[in-house]
Amino acid sequence: MRAHTAYLWFTTRSPRELINITDRVAEIVETAGVEEGFCLVSAMHITSGVYVSDWENGLIHDFQVWLEKLAPSGLDYRHHQTGEDNADAHLKRTIMGHQVLLPITEGKLDLGPWEQVFYAEFDGQRRKRVIVKVMGESGTERAER
Amino acid sequence: MRAHTAYLWFTTRSPRELINITDRVAEIVETAGVEEGFCLVSAMHITSGVYVSDWENGLIHDFQVWLEKLAPSGLDYRHHQTGEDNADAHLKRTIMGHQVLLPITEGKLDLGPWEQVFYAEFDGQRRKRVIVKVMGESGTERAER
Amino acid sequence: MRAHTAYLWFTTRSPRELINITDRVAEIVETAGVEEGFCLVSAMHITSGVYVSDWENGLIHDFQVWLEKLAPSGLDYRHHQTGEDNADAHLKRTIMGHQVLLPITEGKLDLGPWEQVFYAEFDGQRRKRVIVKVMGESGTERAER
Repeated sequence: MRAHTAYLWFTTRSPRELINITDRVAEIVETAGVEEGFCLVSAMHITSGVYVSDWENGLIHDFQVWLEKLAPSGLDYRHHQTGEDNADAHLKRTIMGHQVLLPITEGKLDLGPWEQVFYAEFDGQRRKRVIVKVMGESGTERAER
Repeated sequence: MRAHTAYLWFTTRSPRELINITDRVAEIVETAGVEEGFCLVSAMHITSGVYVSDWENGLIHDFQVWLEKLAPSGLDYRHHQTGEDNADAHLKRTIMGHQVLLPITEGKLDLGPWEQVFYAEFDGQRRKRVIVKVMGESGTERAER
Repeated sequence: MRAHTAYLWFTTRSPRELINITDRVAEIVETAGVEEGFCLVSAMHITSGVYVSDWENGLIHDFQVWLEKLAPSGLDYRHHQTGEDNADAHLKRTIMGHQVLLPITEGKLDLGPWEQVFYAEFDGQRRKRVIVKVMGESGTERAER
């Protein structure tokens, strides 16, 4: 069994951004040297998420509009009595999901034709982190079986 | 460590369908020969999902009505400027989730009394795929420890 | 490879409760003796969920209000024709998610500064179960490599 852990850091320019991180995750998988296994990509902050979707700018815009409708900012959330103003960011990330588990087959991310991995920031403009953890069987281990 | 990968294909008759795939997943787990481990069931298309719920027709109907309310079709989505007309399918699958990770204990799916695994199609009538990837320890490996 | 499985039981006093279970999960991880791996925390009932969020009472309240808005109780759901009255609980848990996969690094849960694991009950006051399943490489196995 082989395990490999990496962290991606983000400081977005806008408070909300949806960023394609597929290539960065694929690179980590290559470094890990795992032939058959799983790759966890998980936001380590509770106002951001990770999800899989299509890389199309119109759709990215639609997601932002939709999330604002389902989980509006600017409401009188009780969380804001603590001095915070980001309750909606917690709700938005809940809808998008905070993590994905990607299959690795024959040493590569085993994704469908339009599957792309996104980092979803809802309270940005400061340093935040995503863990990428790979676990599985290396090529050497497979050969020895 | 043992890994086993299978793919399920779906071509639904309706654009939207919620299909119980528990038995098909359980069969793959049996084939895999893993005693203790995880089974990832993940949609490989971004307009379909996989989730765990109750197998009750009334509830399946309620899910469809509810998803149409939260993520309506027929709106003027920006994604449709590309010629697509399925933006709502992306949103609906986001709510339902695109994957589940099922525990395998003593060689079997370790599910609660009403837990059933569903494939959720929101833009069907064409060939689409789900990956089922099992990883864990085989009975032989366990015995050798 | 080492695998360890435990179950947490809950009988909540209210029908709906959001309960911090981080310490209980961390204890199970310690018992498992896994240095590098994954810990699945998954509700075994379809009217409850598991999610990661901030441990702040105002936010916990905001989540309850928000879920009631997105997935109201008391509607004329078709599921209720079976004699059940908890269709909204199924929908609420769908939004919150039914499971999380936590990374284990150097023998400990690898969580961000505010990440806490919650059990979400939406149809409580009876005995319900969560599976905690750990899989990975033990310290001894790592040393032998």
